[in-house]
Amino acid sequence: MATATTVHQVRRPSGLPTPEDFAFVRGPLPEVTTGTALVENLHLSVDPYMREAMDYDGWGGGNDLDTPLEGRSIGRVIASRTPGLADGDLVFHRKAWRTHALVTPEEATVLPGWAGVPIRTRLSLLGGTGLSAYVGLTRIARLQPGEDVFISAAAGGVGTAAGQIARLLGARRVIGSAGSAAKVRHLVDDLGFDAAFDYHDGPVGAQLAKAAPEGVDVFFDNVGGDHLEGAIENLRTHGRVAWCGAVAQYNDLGNPPPAPRNLYDVVSKSIRLEGFLVREYNHLQGELEDLLVPHLRSGALKPDETVVEGIDNVVAAFIGMLRGENLGKMIVSL
Amino acid sequence: MATATTVHQVRRPSGLPTPEDFAFVRGPLPEVTTGTALVENLHLSVDPYMREAMDYDGWGGGNDLDTPLEGRSIGRVIASRTPGLADGDLVFHRKAWRTHALVTPEEATVLPGWAGVPIRTRLSLLGGTGLSAYVGLTRIARLQPGEDVFISAAAGGVGTAAGQIARLLGARRVIGSAGSAAKVRHLVDDLGFDAAFDYHDGPVGAQLAKAAPEGVDVFFDNVGGDHLEGAIENLRTHGRVAWCGAVAQYNDLGNPPPAPRNLYDVVSKSIRLEGFLVREYNHLQGELEDLLVPHLRSGALKPDETVVEGIDNVVAAFIGMLRGENLGKMIVSL
Repeated sequence: MATATTVHQVRRPSGLPTPEDFAFVRGPLPEVTTGTALVENLHLSVDPYMREAMDYDGWGGGNDLDTPLEGRSIGRVIASRTPGLADGDLVFHRKAWRTHALVTPEEATVLPGWAGVPIRTRLSLLGGTGLSAYVGLTRIARLQPGEDVFISAAAGGVGTAAGQIARLLGARRVIGSAGSAAKVRHLVDDLGFDAAFDYHDGPVGAQLAKAAPEGVDVFFDNVGGDHLEGAIENLRTHGRVAWCGAVAQYNDLGNPPPAPRNLYDVVSKSIRLEGFLVREYNHLQGELEDLLVPHLRSGALKPDETVVEGIDNVVAAFIGMLRGENLGKMIVSL
Repeated sequence: MATATTVHQVRRPSGLPTPEDFAFVRGPLPEVTTGTALVENLHLSVDPYMREAMDYDGWGGGNDLDTPLEGRSIGRVIASRTPGLADGDLVFHRKAWRTHALVTPEEATVLPGWAGVPIRTRLSLLGGTGLSAYVGLTRIARLQPGEDVFISAAAGGVGTAAGQIARLLGARRVIGSAGSAAKVRHLVDDLGFDAAFDYHDGPVGAQLAKAAPEGVDVFFDNVGGDHLEGAIENLRTHGRVAWCGAVAQYNDLGNPPPAPRNLYDVVSKSIRLEGFLVREYNHLQGELEDLLVPHLRSGALKPDETVVEGIDNVVAAFIGMLRGENLGKMIVSL
């Protein structure tokens, strides 16, 4: 008989989570009740925002202990008792980390077939990760064609998406910072960044000035702290900073980055800084697909993903992602 | 024979300027050359941005030593050798601090007559001060009717203008902070602020929370530092911070305010922060007049000004303004 595995959060972590904060619970497949469908999950997403959810209970917008740490997932309907979902449907839902999830039609989105585009792209470039990059660039920073962009944590999921999408939006130069020489090479050699640097090699401001002697127009920030300070140094008049949700994440790890000492230079440079949460922009999913799918189909755009196999590795993948061990979007395939 | 007085900057100050940084130079009236007109100044403006100009020479966008510290002024043409200006014209120009200025038609704007509105209002509510408040509220913070506004340095020139204009724009509650009990009383009793507090009386965040238990939507900031931190604590989701040029001023006094420790809360609250320089918005002067003049004429709106008499007091007025000794806009009338 088939067995379902569910990954519970059993403890509130302090700082970086450890394997002991989770428990793998195995049991029979859930019974399909009227109005629901059973989904066999194919791909699970591990994302920075989940770390924040671990700090609060359900009432606080987080995760109750001894329940699964829920997240984005893609699966296939294997048994339906609702007319809204049919056996064989590929669906996106938010009820991982589980091998099997019971969903209502309201909780699941039947995925369109994008011929030639791998379905797990719905968790990377065509998912919340890509949407974060797209919203930050188009709605927050309002990137214009011909402008120059700097991206922090550029080798991470949102970072690589931001670099690729900035290019599609007509950015002139795309510059990234990352945490290792391998990541820097990946950005320039595999993802078409015009320049990249390892932030361990020197002050961000000085390295950015070297990579972008004429300054930059937009800073897509996943980091804050010294990256923000270095960006403010190098932003042109009327520059914009888009602060992705991941920045707040750092606070929860107990190490809030220092606020930049040059913050008030945003006045003399007429700079705009704006934070955003991607969950307010789900209505732009169609717009994101319209932009990206043709390029994904033609092969001109390739999702940048680190894929880990097996539900047993989801906790390690999550912790690894928080430690920055991934290149691009971290996905767990079952 | 009439004498002209010109106030030169003779030294670069460190921190707060002192009287020794200036010299009063007296001499004959300037000779009216072809294409110019001689203006007898009636009112001079002393503004925070002038402190910054004192740090740099003309090439750096500042003020050369042994030349007048230039600023906004209103005067009357007393001798013209250009068809663009006629004897008796009331003009706005930027060539104070002088009792008499030689101007070209390009350097002077002939002022419209606003029946019943004192001409010196062109240096307060209808001048750069009012325009700073108007731009910050309408173009940067994009204040909507029914929203709540918090203003720092609320008893200063830009602050009182922001409070009055926010009300005209339909703000629900207008809250200010200031540096003395007298200023707090002035805001509530004379200017119609709904609440105000003395920032010496306790942490800004806690005092603002008491004055605005439901939070605020917009923070018009002239100060930065602990005011920004307290505002971020109390801003609602999608709150906006408009940073007026005056904030940068503090850097030049050698005491840059600390960046707020809760800066990254702007992500979870989707807050927007934006700096601006009013000089980029001079094209909105007509819009400002359209809004304010009817209310000024009816008496519903009164410019909040501290008027000092005599060119000999311009330096003291300037230093007093930098020390926050004024209520409302500081003007020197000759």
